[in-house]
Amino acid sequence: MTDRLLSISNCVGRVRGASPIVHCITNFVTVNDCANIILAVGGSPTMSRHRDEVGEIQSGCSALVLNMGAVDDLQAMLLAGKTANELGHPVVLDPVGAGASSLRRSVAAELLSNIRFAAIRGNASEIRFLAEGRAKQAGGIDADISDRITASNIRKWAALAKKLAAEKDSIVCISGVTDIIADSRQAFAFSGGCRLMSRITGSGCMLSSLLGCFLGAMPEEPLKAAVCAQAVMNAAGDIALEKTERAGGGTMSFRMHLIDAVSLMTGETLNEYAKIEELP
Amino acid sequence: MTDRLLSISNCVGRVRGASPIVHCITNFVTVNDCANIILAVGGSPTMSRHRDEVGEIQSGCSALVLNMGAVDDLQAMLLAGKTANELGHPVVLDPVGAGASSLRRSVAAELLSNIRFAAIRGNASEIRFLAEGRAKQAGGIDADISDRITASNIRKWAALAKKLAAEKDSIVCISGVTDIIADSRQAFAFSGGCRLMSRITGSGCMLSSLLGCFLGAMPEEPLKAAVCAQAVMNAAGDIALEKTERAGGGTMSFRMHLIDAVSLMTGETLNEYAKIEELP
Amino acid sequence: MTDRLLSISNCVGRVRGASPIVHCITNFVTVNDCANIILAVGGSPTMSRHRDEVGEIQSGCSALVLNMGAVDDLQAMLLAGKTANELGHPVVLDPVGAGASSLRRSVAAELLSNIRFAAIRGNASEIRFLAEGRAKQAGGIDADISDRITASNIRKWAALAKKLAAEKDSIVCISGVTDIIADSRQAFAFSGGCRLMSRITGSGCMLSSLLGCFLGAMPEEPLKAAVCAQAVMNAAGDIALEKTERAGGGTMSFRMHLIDAVSLMTGETLNEYAKIEELP
Repeated sequence: MTDRLLSISNCVGRVRGASPIVHCITNFVTVNDCANIILAVGGSPTMSRHRDEVGEIQSGCSALVLNMGAVDDLQAMLLAGKTANELGHPVVLDPVGAGASSLRRSVAAELLSNIRFAAIRGNASEIRFLAEGRAKQAGGIDADISDRITASNIRKWAALAKKLAAEKDSIVCISGVTDIIADSRQAFAFSGGCRLMSRITGSGCMLSSLLGCFLGAMPEEPLKAAVCAQAVMNAAGDIALEKTERAGGGTMSFRMHLIDAVSLMTGETLNEYAKIEELP
Repeated sequence: MTDRLLSISNCVGRVRGASPIVHCITNFVTVNDCANIILAVGGSPTMSRHRDEVGEIQSGCSALVLNMGAVDDLQAMLLAGKTANELGHPVVLDPVGAGASSLRRSVAAELLSNIRFAAIRGNASEIRFLAEGRAKQAGGIDADISDRITASNIRKWAALAKKLAAEKDSIVCISGVTDIIADSRQAFAFSGGCRLMSRITGSGCMLSSLLGCFLGAMPEEPLKAAVCAQAVMNAAGDIALEKTERAGGGTMSFRMHLIDAVSLMTGETLNEYAKIEELP
Repeated sequence: MTDRLLSISNCVGRVRGASPIVHCITNFVTVNDCANIILAVGGSPTMSRHRDEVGEIQSGCSALVLNMGAVDDLQAMLLAGKTANELGHPVVLDPVGAGASSLRRSVAAELLSNIRFAAIRGNASEIRFLAEGRAKQAGGIDADISDRITASNIRKWAALAKKLAAEKDSIVCISGVTDIIADSRQAFAFSGGCRLMSRITGSGCMLSSLLGCFLGAMPEEPLKAAVCAQAVMNAAGDIALEKTERAGGGTMSFRMHLIDAVSLMTGETLNEYAKIEELP
């Protein structure tokens, strides 16, 4: 089982072959990056969010990504999500800022009680809020420093991810310096997340968009799809960091090289860079 | 006539001399790219979309671009479009996703029956929908594969473009691997569209924005303005592809080099790269 | 006093140490650039604009930036601004297009009569409108050519900035080829603004975002915070221009190198590039 999950070298080819149309209802800050990373990996993005068309648009797509940064568009998210569920399209939830305001707490609750998500991806504070209902103390949308995943607490985080995955019948992805991906029974750690990933806006939103592409291309294997999306993102991050440092560049060079690397990703590169480990 | 149309080397100079203020009501996915390509070619962008000011803002501008991705802003588009028509400002329609939902079908109909467009620019599926009323089958906003313009069907597409141009008293631009620009009597083909143009979001929206600039700078010559905008976009695409490949870059490098090339475009470069041919 | 103001080499370190969470209610054209430049300098951006959460979100932040390009979000701006005032968070006003429409004139009046701003930053036409109530003649959102700051009129502009600063108990920043920063008693000029700064969209919005970061990190020294933000922006612009020209790049290369340079800024670089002069 694990070996099959870790054999990811042909996953980009599967996305490019299927060219899934991925519908994203997402925030206006990073929407351009999300569309571009979907194109880079071989999908086709559609960013419709008008409630009078999202159901119809969804029916022509293969997957749906709901990003809670689009908090204005709750009704559109519910309509598109229900349509996707009816049609069997995988739906990704990116719970941006879940717990950061009472509005977001209620939007998260509404989405989770009305839509079945194939995958839920957020930072540690967001996922902890969904799992335990406790909001983080600090402001903003970044993860709390107290929620940092380390070698000494990673098993606790993996257990939390598995528990949420079981409750929601979903894949759960926690993004950070170490990333965790889990279903109800298994959890994987991806170490060595690159230091510039958190210095650009949209790295989480982009990963959720990649998740939508991989789920759209291999809906019957959601755990593998999530492992592939994370592996592509991390490999692209490592390559982008190398290119950025070699040229003396900064954070915007990194973003360019990141999406570039996704657009140029091959199975060989992915195998070379992937640092995935199953957690006990 | 054709010779004069094909003599485009001074067109960028005309935009830079006139520095037209171009008002765009456009989608949130690619609005930043649209503003930047307008600045790159020498225009000045204004992205107002509040219905309480679009008429007043339009009166201080030289051209208007209505991008149907901004489907929420129909009332603002109608107000700005009517003002532009009254003042004689050229208006561009980019019918993003026309035919992809009943909402978009009705928005397209409303815009076309209330506003006179100097130019209409879309992909083959969008233009076919406007000309024939038949929506494409597949989902998403990209052109159908069945609508690909090839050597064997290009005359049919040119005829369709001329027919729509005649009906709407407009220039019609079809974007794809081969681009077509037509008025009611003449059609031109631009071959060799670069392979990365469809791998970034916004290439169509950016071309529509360039169209707004050229129409704003030479409103009395709409066909020439459209030929120039397309020639600048394609030359920039070819230059950007060369730079991207030379540096081993991907899709985001391409986007950067594309807008860079527009900002650096000269008449000589344009003459060197332009691959325009009149269709019989 | 002036010496202390001009001793800016440790200012970036202060932002990186404080890592202020900066809440921006801003326009959809340049919101991504604003978020990325805040991250680049060492802050943390939050771009919430829903009226049901902006007060709560603000309470978890250190500063607020209100960009009038977000003219749809007046109620959210008022709510967030009042909360920020109550909590003592510095608030920045970027009066985009002030004077360009009657809507924007009334939005500016409403904001200025309900919120106390720690800093107001705009182009010469926008600041003149706020100071004198006369709107510029030409359309669009760029500064009028008649409002260009030159060696012969800079004292008049400095006097106007000081007068507005006194009236509003605020720091006033005028951006252009020469930039002016003033409180009620002192004014500084920053010469040598780089020629590509006005060829990209968002350079003003990004500077206002930097202002929010520096005010959030040193709220007790608003004049120094503004001097530091401007110095960082101009140094980054000079570095970006050098890199762009060396590589034969255009406007999008410049934008990338600009934010890159902010992310790589050190005290030494800042000292080397800063061209600040106190006006008599």
